[in-house]
Amino acid sequence: MRVVVLRLGHRPERDKRITTHVGLVSRAFGAEEMLMDGRDPSVEESLADVVERWGGSFRLKADVSWKGEAARWKETGGKVVHLTMYGSRLVDVLTDIRSHERIMVVVGAEKVPAEIYQLADWNVAVGNQPHSEVAALAVFLDHLMEGQELTKNFDGGLEIIPSPKGKQVIGHRPGQL
Amino acid sequence: MRVVVLRLGHRPERDKRITTHVGLVSRAFGAEEMLMDGRDPSVEESLADVVERWGGSFRLKADVSWKGEAARWKETGGKVVHLTMYGSRLVDVLTDIRSHERIMVVVGAEKVPAEIYQLADWNVAVGNQPHSEVAALAVFLDHLMEGQELTKNFDGGLEIIPSPKGKQVIGHRPGQL
Repeated sequence: MRVVVLRLGHRPERDKRITTHVGLVSRAFGAEEMLMDGRDPSVEESLADVVERWGGSFRLKADVSWKGEAARWKETGGKVVHLTMYGSRLVDVLTDIRSHERIMVVVGAEKVPAEIYQLADWNVAVGNQPHSEVAALAVFLDHLMEGQELTKNFDGGLEIIPSPKGKQVIGHRPGQL
Repeated sequence: MRVVVLRLGHRPERDKRITTHVGLVSRAFGAEEMLMDGRDPSVEESLADVVERWGGSFRLKADVSWKGEAARWKETGGKVVHLTMYGSRLVDVLTDIRSHERIMVVVGAEKVPAEIYQLADWNVAVGNQPHSEVAALAVFLDHLMEGQELTKNFDGGLEIIPSPKGKQVIGHRPGQL
């Protein structure tokens, strides 16, 4: 399965850290790319730094037209899932979503354009309570990937050895620890 | 099962929105309380506002001594789980954790005191990659509650009817919508 994340409505003055977390979750939970309808150098730097040190081929594409990207995704056979607390219950639609090969997950900030509800193939709620787009994305991807993403090998310069107490990190490149 | 969340190392100048998301996730994913080793009026207001409108009995306790709270929790038979990317894999410890009745989940900001690794009964990684304490908490609680939290009724003034397109909200109190 191929997954990309589309981040809508990023406000540089408020959302730097939340959007960075959306990007890091996208990478760690198995998405291959995050698209943004804007640009924020601090988000770009944080994500590039993690990819550089921890591996993988995750990419950020800034300043996209969200409508253009979503429309092209659908025209080429992909499906669009919009995460919103107003949507269908995750358990009711997950099997259907999982039967498709290419999924774009749309994650909004506080306000999203009304059109996205129509454009999406599914509007999906990870619980119908207000909480966090970071949490909704992580739980959705975890269910979509059935937990397989949590043990994915990123082939990075740094690698953690899971440990019950303390920290064990292997540096695969000279001078990296 | 009773779950509380302990938020460590909140920095008001950086973490307002992340800590608010940690609190909202705690509530939405079934914890009864969030403890903080500091105070931030904007976090308090955001959480109080959600509880007022959306229901439930979730509480925030600010300015706690984290060591005192964790020690008392353990002395009275509770268990402490520290979420960290360096910890044991979630799948390897979840069954053991789930056999206990009272769980305190510790969620740090960027730096945490080294003592917490020793004090915790389990250090648990939701994936051994850098991502987000908001995401780690949500995925951990989702696995702990086996997804049951996503359909919990909060008996609030506002209630969402899950909907494939658009928004359907019931106001159970006059003038609330």
